[in-house]
Amino acid sequence: MTVGIVGAGQLGRMLALAGYPLGLDFLFLDRTADAPAARIAPALLGEFTDPRHLGELARRCRVISFDWENISVEALRAATRGSGARIAPPLRALAAAQDRLAEKRLFERLGIPTTRHAAVDSPASLARAVARIGLPGVLKTRRLGYDGKGQAVLRTSTDIERAWTALGGAPLIYEEFVPFDYEVSALGARSTHGEVALYGLNRNVHVDGILRLTRAPCGPPALERRAHAHLRHVLEAFGYAGVLAIEFFVRNGRLIANEMAPRVHNSGHWTIEGAETSQFENHLRAILGLPLGSTRARGHSAMINLIGAVPAARGLLAEPGLHLHDYGKAARVGRKVGHCTIVAPTAAARDARARKLLRRLYPGLGPIP
Amino acid sequence: MTVGIVGAGQLGRMLALAGYPLGLDFLFLDRTADAPAARIAPALLGEFTDPRHLGELARRCRVISFDWENISVEALRAATRGSGARIAPPLRALAAAQDRLAEKRLFERLGIPTTRHAAVDSPASLARAVARIGLPGVLKTRRLGYDGKGQAVLRTSTDIERAWTALGGAPLIYEEFVPFDYEVSALGARSTHGEVALYGLNRNVHVDGILRLTRAPCGPPALERRAHAHLRHVLEAFGYAGVLAIEFFVRNGRLIANEMAPRVHNSGHWTIEGAETSQFENHLRAILGLPLGSTRARGHSAMINLIGAVPAARGLLAEPGLHLHDYGKAARVGRKVGHCTIVAPTAAARDARARKLLRRLYPGLGPIP
Repeated sequence: MTVGIVGAGQLGRMLALAGYPLGLDFLFLDRTADAPAARIAPALLGEFTDPRHLGELARRCRVISFDWENISVEALRAATRGSGARIAPPLRALAAAQDRLAEKRLFERLGIPTTRHAAVDSPASLARAVARIGLPGVLKTRRLGYDGKGQAVLRTSTDIERAWTALGGAPLIYEEFVPFDYEVSALGARSTHGEVALYGLNRNVHVDGILRLTRAPCGPPALERRAHAHLRHVLEAFGYAGVLAIEFFVRNGRLIANEMAPRVHNSGHWTIEGAETSQFENHLRAILGLPLGSTRARGHSAMINLIGAVPAARGLLAEPGLHLHDYGKAARVGRKVGHCTIVAPTAAARDARARKLLRRLYPGLGPIP
Repeated sequence: MTVGIVGAGQLGRMLALAGYPLGLDFLFLDRTADAPAARIAPALLGEFTDPRHLGELARRCRVISFDWENISVEALRAATRGSGARIAPPLRALAAAQDRLAEKRLFERLGIPTTRHAAVDSPASLARAVARIGLPGVLKTRRLGYDGKGQAVLRTSTDIERAWTALGGAPLIYEEFVPFDYEVSALGARSTHGEVALYGLNRNVHVDGILRLTRAPCGPPALERRAHAHLRHVLEAFGYAGVLAIEFFVRNGRLIANEMAPRVHNSGHWTIEGAETSQFENHLRAILGLPLGSTRARGHSAMINLIGAVPAARGLLAEPGLHLHDYGKAARVGRKVGHCTIVAPTAAARDARARKLLRRLYPGLGPIP
């Protein structure tokens, strides 16, 4: 059976690597021929909205999924209508995740604590939002933001005009700035049959808006239970199929939902070696209606993103037990080009090794909490 | 960097799946376009001896390896001469493994106990061999045998003529029949820098000449130490690079070397989930001169070959913790089309689950020792 995937980035690549052992074939759609997944699987080359390519995906694939969110819900819906191809995760979840305002409203509707926020579409509405929510705050584009792009922090009232100049024109959202203690993400899968399997909670460290380090499972049990309950609410609300991630701020032991991703997620890469079944395999099992695999952790994992360039494999692989994932991408400042994972027998051993590895990979980086 | 591989079977496929995360590209050569590895990587289509294709491999790849033994040492040597492409494992090891007589003589030269044997090239030399070594015995083709093909068991003197009729014409070897207690295989890698990493011993059950079940690591420590010493001898004798497997009979606690395979090996498939670094990744690390990965076992593994046809994934994947490896091959009687692995916390739990799974997959199979 062939699975179609819109987007052939590293997430698509790791989906294919997880799906080949299940006997699956893949067909990707991407704008660039040397995209990570296009190097290891057949790919159609063109725009994500191209009805001809989307139509071909729909003809050749039983199920169509996607490896990033910035694709057109409308184009995908139109191209697959009447084709018999199923789209998973559901487009309604994709639509909600594409719009920060819709996402926040979803969280509110489901009783999931989230940041205070207001829609902004003019200097006046921005001024009203700042007056109501206060400073500091973050002005964000409602759509097409990722890895800290399309955001401006407002600290004083003089920042208001500057932020509007930088971002105004697109629909915006103003959010309270949450001085969080740390960030976690909840990750799990729901299958087309309604089976749910959740992974242990991920603790994430972002630097310059880009995920740098994930440690998992991070607990504590009570926090994990609450995060899992929230994740289940969203999964059930959409009659979801596939893997879903929700990122939370943690402040004084409370969870505040920040955003969600209706796909496999960077904070779940540790599951390849660190869990009995990876998020990639479970995403495929879920969208194909197969039984989900165990999400049990194999130990205490740390995943470090390789940003900019992949260091020489010779040096990295000399690190005992290190697992390298090179996405086959050209080096570029700020680009996620790979990741590496270590699995340790205890959380303390994991943390010590992760710190040492981070210092080696990013000598300029300050201490990691 | 592109790694060339002659043969695009399931071993090549699993090499590619292990190599992609290391950032490697692959180029295969195979006779059939739908060979398992050719479904997930670029492949040249043609005969294994075709100098044009072998020359292209040599031009486009820094290192050339192979995923089965029945290829021409001479053609490979001629095609790569002066090309700068390195062949690993070494062709001398491949040549020895291709000829059961050379293989036995190698074992003898290195002081590794092996079966008593004699070269056979005529009815008269077969009669002499039977007289010297006795009955029962096994007459085998010296070359091109695998999975029990090209063999005849001689139980009484009336079998001599029948066996000669079946196999005569090709160079043969007559071997004593070893009424072994069980079979094990030793598996390990040596890198181009001389680093060696060995896996825990595999206990193998063959049915009708085809590997059905491997449990690992099987110990006991003393036996493993001796098997590892033998494996090291062969690795060092060849200045080997890559993964090597040696199959042994075990009788009264003694090891008797049966044959070797200068490649990743079916009895090592459990290492994908059951060891910290798989045999496939370590083969690639070894032939590329990268540091070898830890061979530490993650638990107690059982690998069961799927022979003939892959059962419906839905049923298989419902088995908790089962990892499926579907090679993407068409169903055919007696064909290895996939395997599955379970990893358990204890040997007893592993054995119980493996037995249950075997009964389910092969209802007609007798009890497994």
